[in-house]
Amino acid sequence: MIETPYLLFLGDAPDGLAAKVAQGIKDWRPDASLGQYRMEGCKADMGMTDMTIDEAVAAGCKTLVIGVANRGGVISAAWKEVLVEALNKGMDIASGLHNLLRDEPDLVAAAEANGRSLHDVRIPSVEYPIANGTKRSGKRVLAVGTDCSVGKMYTGIAMEREMLERGMKASFRATGQTGILITGDGVPLDAVIADFMAGSVEYVTPDNDEDHWDLIEGQGSLFHVSYSGVTMALIHGGQPDALILCHEPTRTHMRGLPEYQLPSLATLRDTALPLAQVANPACKVVGISVNTQHMSEDEANAYLQQVEAEMGLPTVDPFRHGAGRLVDALDAV
Amino acid sequence: MIETPYLLFLGDAPDGLAAKVAQGIKDWRPDASLGQYRMEGCKADMGMTDMTIDEAVAAGCKTLVIGVANRGGVISAAWKEVLVEALNKGMDIASGLHNLLRDEPDLVAAAEANGRSLHDVRIPSVEYPIANGTKRSGKRVLAVGTDCSVGKMYTGIAMEREMLERGMKASFRATGQTGILITGDGVPLDAVIADFMAGSVEYVTPDNDEDHWDLIEGQGSLFHVSYSGVTMALIHGGQPDALILCHEPTRTHMRGLPEYQLPSLATLRDTALPLAQVANPACKVVGISVNTQHMSEDEANAYLQQVEAEMGLPTVDPFRHGAGRLVDALDAV
Repeated sequence: MIETPYLLFLGDAPDGLAAKVAQGIKDWRPDASLGQYRMEGCKADMGMTDMTIDEAVAAGCKTLVIGVANRGGVISAAWKEVLVEALNKGMDIASGLHNLLRDEPDLVAAAEANGRSLHDVRIPSVEYPIANGTKRSGKRVLAVGTDCSVGKMYTGIAMEREMLERGMKASFRATGQTGILITGDGVPLDAVIADFMAGSVEYVTPDNDEDHWDLIEGQGSLFHVSYSGVTMALIHGGQPDALILCHEPTRTHMRGLPEYQLPSLATLRDTALPLAQVANPACKVVGISVNTQHMSEDEANAYLQQVEAEMGLPTVDPFRHGAGRLVDALDAV
Repeated sequence: MIETPYLLFLGDAPDGLAAKVAQGIKDWRPDASLGQYRMEGCKADMGMTDMTIDEAVAAGCKTLVIGVANRGGVISAAWKEVLVEALNKGMDIASGLHNLLRDEPDLVAAAEANGRSLHDVRIPSVEYPIANGTKRSGKRVLAVGTDCSVGKMYTGIAMEREMLERGMKASFRATGQTGILITGDGVPLDAVIADFMAGSVEYVTPDNDEDHWDLIEGQGSLFHVSYSGVTMALIHGGQPDALILCHEPTRTHMRGLPEYQLPSLATLRDTALPLAQVANPACKVVGISVNTQHMSEDEANAYLQQVEAEMGLPTVDPFRHGAGRLVDALDAV
């Protein structure tokens, strides 16, 4: 677990998009962070209190979270000056960057000297077991997509928030680096060794109260040939009781694969459900989450109505309309 | 590539079963090995010439292949004495053991001192790319199973042998440790990082002559919840033109999963084929390979006839009857 509260490190972000990890944390865990740290020339701004390291420590920040992509795949000398100061003054550091904190001798030395932790969420920190397929207590829902990056993480977190507001027992289970930094825990599934993928999903969705729901973050797509194996491991390791289908209707081809078309929602349903029923024969498809960010309000509403009529399932854009109807559908499982 | 000819190291095998890697190499590449090395108390025997290291070197052996499981997960001092002698006298060593040759300082030192190679086929030696899904030239066939360990490797190698005998262009593409030691090359797919699984399969089945067939070694099963992600990566990374369904009819539950039943061959066909057609719309199921080792000749023949009638596909046990009819079916694709 990564300790909160956070100080969000925005570095020298060239624009707001470079700080999308910080944006996710701010949007989804607004109480997790007490302030932001911006270097000279930083073009991103979360609208939070700007803090020096001293101010952050005085305010009680436990972990500096790198909320921004680095340039050129290196952790610059300018960044390191700030990171070493944070370690020297008693904070941990968490990062989802490809180049690992632990591979930087000066950061390792400062962490050791001060008894602090370097959290590299890019790679696993656990030796996961091989999946055993044993039925676990509690309930689980998994978001599966027609493609990568169609809103699966957003759907899961939005449902968790709605469920917690209703007083339901719910835990978003992060399976990607951004989700792990947002929630402070999870499995970086894309970095797990093949034989242990499904086992790692079992590990992060353990036995629980019968009325508790795990909201498992989806990854990839059964129809995305680069990553479908990861999706398959989520479907079998997660042994979901319910599936939510996720879709982005304006996409013209599979992400990164110009020769591949997206499947229809009906094809996704007919492919994913029988596979999920291998691990959990009671699994049902309960709802559809559509990312309509590239549609007007009228287009979006017309599209959602059309899909709902065709598929016979509650169909919403949780960003526009909230996740309430998806949670209602879960409640009926 | 692992250099041939081999000396098969049987060590102090407690029984023949412990030497099943050596048995596979001897069965499938009888010309690859010039002799066997047995220590005192060895209970396995491949019926090959027993050789000392000196005799093996004089005969021209290039690589000592560890063809036996080790006891207790350690490479014993008695083994090391032989292995170091082999390195000192100019041979490489190849191993599929979980405990790696490269983690043994005395073996590393001897290899370096003599300019020899330690081949640990348990783990990848290549940085595989992320799969791009681009259509490759040449043809590919993949064996998919109702369960793990139902004869997928055997089927692929038997088909390759038959095809080469007919003068067809064919390459068995190993995706597991035993297959790699048998053929000298391949990808240890179960040890690849999740994001690169499908890419590693693309890597080992590259562009080829239009009339060349890759016979891709299958792994796991879409219906085995521990390993289905690996199978999925083979189906999409391999972009097969043809699938062979593999089955072992006497099995009472999925291997290692007592609560899970095997699917029918029809269910396997209806699940695997649409998934394969995502990557290769022209993919067909062309035949069925049944492992009838636990049935009498009469039972086996009756079963094969029944399946052939039900499924409308050539159905054979390649061990009993050869792979000829499966190759005929490929030839028609």
